Amino acid sequence: MVQDIRVELTKNKRVKPDMKTVKFGKSFSDHMFLMNYEEGKGWFDPRIVPYGPVEMDMACMVFHYGQEIFEGMKAYRTSEGKVQLFRPTENIRRMAISGERLVMPAVDEDMFLAALKKLLEVDAEWVPSEEATSLYIRPFMIATDVGLGVHASKSYLFSIITCPVGSYYPEGLNPIKIMIESQDVRAVRGGTGIAKCGGNYAASLRASLLAEYKGYSQVLWLDGVERKYIEEVGSMNIMFKVNGEVLTPSLTGSVLAGITRKSCIELMKTWGIDVTERLITVDEIVEAAENGTLEEVWGTGTAAVVSPVGWLTYKDKTFEIGGGKIGTLTQKLYDGLTGIQWGKVPDTLGWTVPVEK
Amino acid sequence: MVQDIRVELTKNKRVKPDMKTVKFGKSFSDHMFLMNYEEGKGWFDPRIVPYGPVEMDMACMVFHYGQEIFEGMKAYRTSEGKVQLFRPTENIRRMAISGERLVMPAVDEDMFLAALKKLLEVDAEWVPSEEATSLYIRPFMIATDVGLGVHASKSYLFSIITCPVGSYYPEGLNPIKIMIESQDVRAVRGGTGIAKCGGNYAASLRASLLAEYKGYSQVLWLDGVERKYIEEVGSMNIMFKVNGEVLTPSLTGSVLAGITRKSCIELMKTWGIDVTERLITVDEIVEAAENGTLEEVWGTGTAAVVSPVGWLTYKDKTFEIGGGKIGTLTQKLYDGLTGIQWGKVPDTLGWTVPVEK
Repeated sequence: MVQDIRVELTKNKRVKPDMKTVKFGKSFSDHMFLMNYEEGKGWFDPRIVPYGPVEMDMACMVFHYGQEIFEGMKAYRTSEGKVQLFRPTENIRRMAISGERLVMPAVDEDMFLAALKKLLEVDAEWVPSEEATSLYIRPFMIATDVGLGVHASKSYLFSIITCPVGSYYPEGLNPIKIMIESQDVRAVRGGTGIAKCGGNYAASLRASLLAEYKGYSQVLWLDGVERKYIEEVGSMNIMFKVNGEVLTPSLTGSVLAGITRKSCIELMKTWGIDVTERLITVDEIVEAAENGTLEEVWGTGTAAVVSPVGWLTYKDKTFEIGGGKIGTLTQKLYDGLTGIQWGKVPDTLGWTVPVEK
Repeated sequence: MVQDIRVELTKNKRVKPDMKTVKFGKSFSDHMFLMNYEEGKGWFDPRIVPYGPVEMDMACMVFHYGQEIFEGMKAYRTSEGKVQLFRPTENIRRMAISGERLVMPAVDEDMFLAALKKLLEVDAEWVPSEEATSLYIRPFMIATDVGLGVHASKSYLFSIITCPVGSYYPEGLNPIKIMIESQDVRAVRGGTGIAKCGGNYAASLRASLLAEYKGYSQVLWLDGVERKYIEEVGSMNIMFKVNGEVLTPSLTGSVLAGITRKSCIELMKTWGIDVTERLITVDEIVEAAENGTLEEVWGTGTAAVVSPVGWLTYKDKTFEIGGGKIGTLTQKLYDGLTGIQWGKVPDTLGWTVPVEK
């Protein structure tokens, strides 16, 4: 059921960032969406208000027990100046799955979509039109019960904030360096790896920071049980082209079901390329790199869309992939996906959802 | 280095709860401690202010990436009316260890202790004197960087809030029912199990809620890799007395190093009881329960101190322990520890720290 959304427009417009230098996720739009939940009452008071701080009790559960989930999606401005979303229902459904694992209530699909569209209408001018830019959209939900007993919260705040972004990596579409992590673990089957929740990211920060100090953009995670199967990059899923075959880790219960991952698989299918989803050991990738059959490696995710990996490091040994240059298939996937997202190529798969204004 | 703590006293005293009916962690004292951190600047502006909401930007990292750690400790009022802390330095050091895993800055030990003492002086009247009550103290730290890039925050808020509490379980010292969880996983070696951080608790909520529906107080977690070794209860460590021997899971990297656990081990040592810390399989505990050698089971934790376990359920089979009554050693440990905490027995181990007023 779609409830009416109250709109309170800002009286103090925020300064828009220079899209040439804007950092990912740092400059927020004029408004945000908020909606509250209480057990027995359900979701209530959907509203769009000026972006700004919210008063929080220091005993709110979200500060102590990490009951928080989020999504990441984007709105794109087409060459005709229209604004469109990319597969928003996929994000809405995945957030409900995250909520199941974290025992948090789902937001009605139609209500969620109505909130997204309304917020984008109100802040339409924040959807940038510069090359390779978009409006990053962050729906998230936090536990707001005030109390320290360890229990699932009975009240929640659902919010959507947005920010105009360029490339996720300073490298842009240039190949990045990835370090395969062999100490820290991000997620384990039975844990929260399938959910987009704070704890997974908190667990990833130390290894990411150490990798960053060493000049890597990201960490590639191995499974938490045997420490030999490749999982994901944390902000991206990963794909390999080995000896002509495209491989990606199967969704074993500790890998996030990426929507860009799914879209890449479906897009390649239309090109006649079947992607093999299976358990992939780090050893076979190292072997492929050593014997020259590792042709391409790329990450897939909303923030970076498709990101070529030029160098993989495992246990202090670095392998260069494709001469450190973007591969043909990686480039084709990037062009194909972003082409649909920015409305440059026909959306034959019905993935985009226009936002009317 | 101990910085001066600014104190702003409340003008609106909060209503004290009825200590006979107070729920754990629901009624907060008049004041709270706050201190900020910025990279390059360190900790600054330590202050005690009236307990109340704090303004938070919705893009604060703590809402998205779960970068948050906490501690749990208690202040006790002795029969002479004095207030004392129990091994606070242990908590302070453990929080620094949690911070290492979550890449968060440590608080100087002396500063932390000074903050605790000052807050307890200001809110001394909130330390209850009724039987079996205490003032629960919750130090915690949250990431306050505003931004959506996945990186360790460069700014943090450290806070201490307190609340008068009675028993953690409504059962009081009556034995509780525990369900051994075989689906969900709380933590894994290499993950964040050794840290007291939000994500571990978020991961535990679903199983705990399902267990609660079935009439259990808590869930007992198995290891995330082999799903056969007993780890902890989430809010408590666990101990078994099997055929005269006291056993507790060793600290393998995914079990929290409980301070009550440590204190129980040390206290038993003074009684001539050696505790065996080792990997314990769920199968051997089930076998001991079946052949009648499982004499006592109890949990240890700051909130519940020592909590007898009367029933253990594993895969739909329930085992009654000690006729569902509190065991002799469990009772002796409870009396021994709480005796020291409330100043009823001499603190020969030097565990208490008086708070002057």
